[in-house]
Amino acid sequence: MSELTFKARELDAGDQLAGLREQFVLDEVVYLDGNSLGALPAAVPGRVEDVVRRQWGALRIRSWDESGWWTAPERIGDLIAPLVGAAAGQIVVGDSTSVNVFKAVVAAVRMARADSYDSSPRDEIVVDATTFPTDGYIAESAARLTGCTLRPVTPAEVPGVLGERTAAVLLNHVDYRTGRLHDLPSLTAAVHDAGAYAVWDLCHSAGALPVGLDEHGVDLAVGCTYKYLNGGPGSPAYLYVRSGLQDRFDSPLPGWNSHAEPFGMRPDFEAAPGALRGRVGTPDILSMLALEAALEVWEGVPIESVRAKSLALTDFFLECVTAYVPADRVESLTPVAHGERGSQVALRCDDAGDVMKKLIERGVVGDFRRPDVLRFGFTPLYVGFADVERAARVLGEVVA
Amino acid sequence: MSELTFKARELDAGDQLAGLREQFVLDEVVYLDGNSLGALPAAVPGRVEDVVRRQWGALRIRSWDESGWWTAPERIGDLIAPLVGAAAGQIVVGDSTSVNVFKAVVAAVRMARADSYDSSPRDEIVVDATTFPTDGYIAESAARLTGCTLRPVTPAEVPGVLGERTAAVLLNHVDYRTGRLHDLPSLTAAVHDAGAYAVWDLCHSAGALPVGLDEHGVDLAVGCTYKYLNGGPGSPAYLYVRSGLQDRFDSPLPGWNSHAEPFGMRPDFEAAPGALRGRVGTPDILSMLALEAALEVWEGVPIESVRAKSLALTDFFLECVTAYVPADRVESLTPVAHGERGSQVALRCDDAGDVMKKLIERGVVGDFRRPDVLRFGFTPLYVGFADVERAARVLGEVVA
Repeated sequence: MSELTFKARELDAGDQLAGLREQFVLDEVVYLDGNSLGALPAAVPGRVEDVVRRQWGALRIRSWDESGWWTAPERIGDLIAPLVGAAAGQIVVGDSTSVNVFKAVVAAVRMARADSYDSSPRDEIVVDATTFPTDGYIAESAARLTGCTLRPVTPAEVPGVLGERTAAVLLNHVDYRTGRLHDLPSLTAAVHDAGAYAVWDLCHSAGALPVGLDEHGVDLAVGCTYKYLNGGPGSPAYLYVRSGLQDRFDSPLPGWNSHAEPFGMRPDFEAAPGALRGRVGTPDILSMLALEAALEVWEGVPIESVRAKSLALTDFFLECVTAYVPADRVESLTPVAHGERGSQVALRCDDAGDVMKKLIERGVVGDFRRPDVLRFGFTPLYVGFADVERAARVLGEVVA
Repeated sequence: MSELTFKARELDAGDQLAGLREQFVLDEVVYLDGNSLGALPAAVPGRVEDVVRRQWGALRIRSWDESGWWTAPERIGDLIAPLVGAAAGQIVVGDSTSVNVFKAVVAAVRMARADSYDSSPRDEIVVDATTFPTDGYIAESAARLTGCTLRPVTPAEVPGVLGERTAAVLLNHVDYRTGRLHDLPSLTAAVHDAGAYAVWDLCHSAGALPVGLDEHGVDLAVGCTYKYLNGGPGSPAYLYVRSGLQDRFDSPLPGWNSHAEPFGMRPDFEAAPGALRGRVGTPDILSMLALEAALEVWEGVPIESVRAKSLALTDFFLECVTAYVPADRVESLTPVAHGERGSQVALRCDDAGDVMKKLIERGVVGDFRRPDVLRFGFTPLYVGFADVERAARVLGEVVA
């Protein structure tokens, strides 16, 4: 047994979260793509069957009340809340991340302009130029519809471009490509100092590390639920609106589900109180209740323990890569400093597409990101240290 | 046996679509609420189980290609197309009806303004004042964001208000409350004569009667899939963009899924060709593939036969209500003329809330719409004439 195999065993033996793996449907594959699509939680199939056969099939329309369908968006939002450091009543689940980015950015611009103490024109939206593209496309559309200019800069450049014209700033907590963790507390503070509003995209951080939305005074946040939250393919996203801003949240998508009296069928719109005004249309029940079942695995799991294991996993992966993979074949794009690292490792590799294909054939599943990135995501709930050692070892064999 | 019971038996015996009922999970309840939530198609539970356990649980990320997840929005759009009289390649499934109304109305305004031969200011959006409220709320938001004025009028008043300032007109094919069917061909022609664009909401017509989108030159259309299409609670909606307009469809929600090269991860947005540019974010696979299974029931079912049965059902219901229910207790709001009737009957009744409660207790499920409407929807795929006779008979007993 190699030294690293032995170390992996020791690390697995000391892993307080190791037992959680049983709550997922897994096989012999080393699945390092949970940052793209989380594995299936074991509780989901039975729940979905109940939703389909009993709630829909037998109760039909009665389930909107009797099975709690109507209140699912805010109920499930409250399950996500502790994972991102939010008190209850600030998150609703529904729509895609893209649609929630649109709501958040337009609403942020409107709040910036409505600040009565403020005579600035507020006509700029600052966006992370290295963002997952959909955020940039949607921010551009929000800018066009609100008469703003879009200003794409790197997160490091953000503090330098903030000013009296800044209305909203849309940032990613963790970069989808490199795995770099951005400094949410200090960037949020800088945005506030400029009198603007901060919108954070948590797709690649929620469920992998503490976010601290309330603690750091984040204004608005969005995220998907199919990565580290394991909600299933295309499961609904969520929107966080800080409680102090909810009365001022003026949605560009005011559907009947965000009305104060949805069944009043009133021709005039009156926004619901609280987080509910982030809702839009009829909630997508099948996917939403699958997500609810998926979130049960988090009961009693402190996000701080998840973060500690995540860092141990990525540290160990980098150690194994150094040992197994020739240094001239791959280069890590992921920061070494813990404070700058999410829960993934991105390796630049000339023939990355080909290498990932071979890895998958050999039972190590990661992601290829064009043109030359191997992306490995580490979900602390079900990835172990032996998986990590095996992945690096197979990578070494494949690139040799 | 009463005369109407006998007539119901005869009608059921001659019903060419009667066998379709076996393709749904039903019980002894008379379910006349399929215009709110369609009954469960028998094919759905098995399909959903396969999607959850095999496609997600075993194949995981590979299913985006191998299980056809990625192309589901346009593939399922093509299953809906023949039901609404559309050639393939014009419909994508995804998001809620409200979100699709937003895309359609903003895009319609942009097209109206981009018409190069046209020097009109085009700053009015005409909307059905009696519409299901979400359409009005969303149209108002679209107006606000595009610098238009919202002009709510009844559908009958629409031709009179159209003019050089009209950019877009948002109409319902069937009124959700009264069941009145509006004249889609002539209203669409009037909108075009004014140089504007017609957006139709098909929520209460698709799957119940022929729509003829292509034949009548409709520009844009949206609809839900959980009523007569039986897609399940909150199943994804759809968006139709006429093929001749697709190159000009300029979405206010340009997500990464509507990009010409979604995995290119390019910072600049380039819209996908064809109907695909109506997509936004990651498609909601569980709900979407449940819908795909639900649509299988339509194979070989001509929508004209469905319409003929629908009219026979509502005719017979009105006949039975006249026979069983004292004339001073209810008043039909649904037009008598076939050309003006959807697939529901709405009865005004002073104590409608209480009456509907008692009906449901006695196994006849309809809808109560405040303040005083009993709404009964007739899904020709699974409602029979004996159901109709029983519903009217029980109604007569309840109000007596």
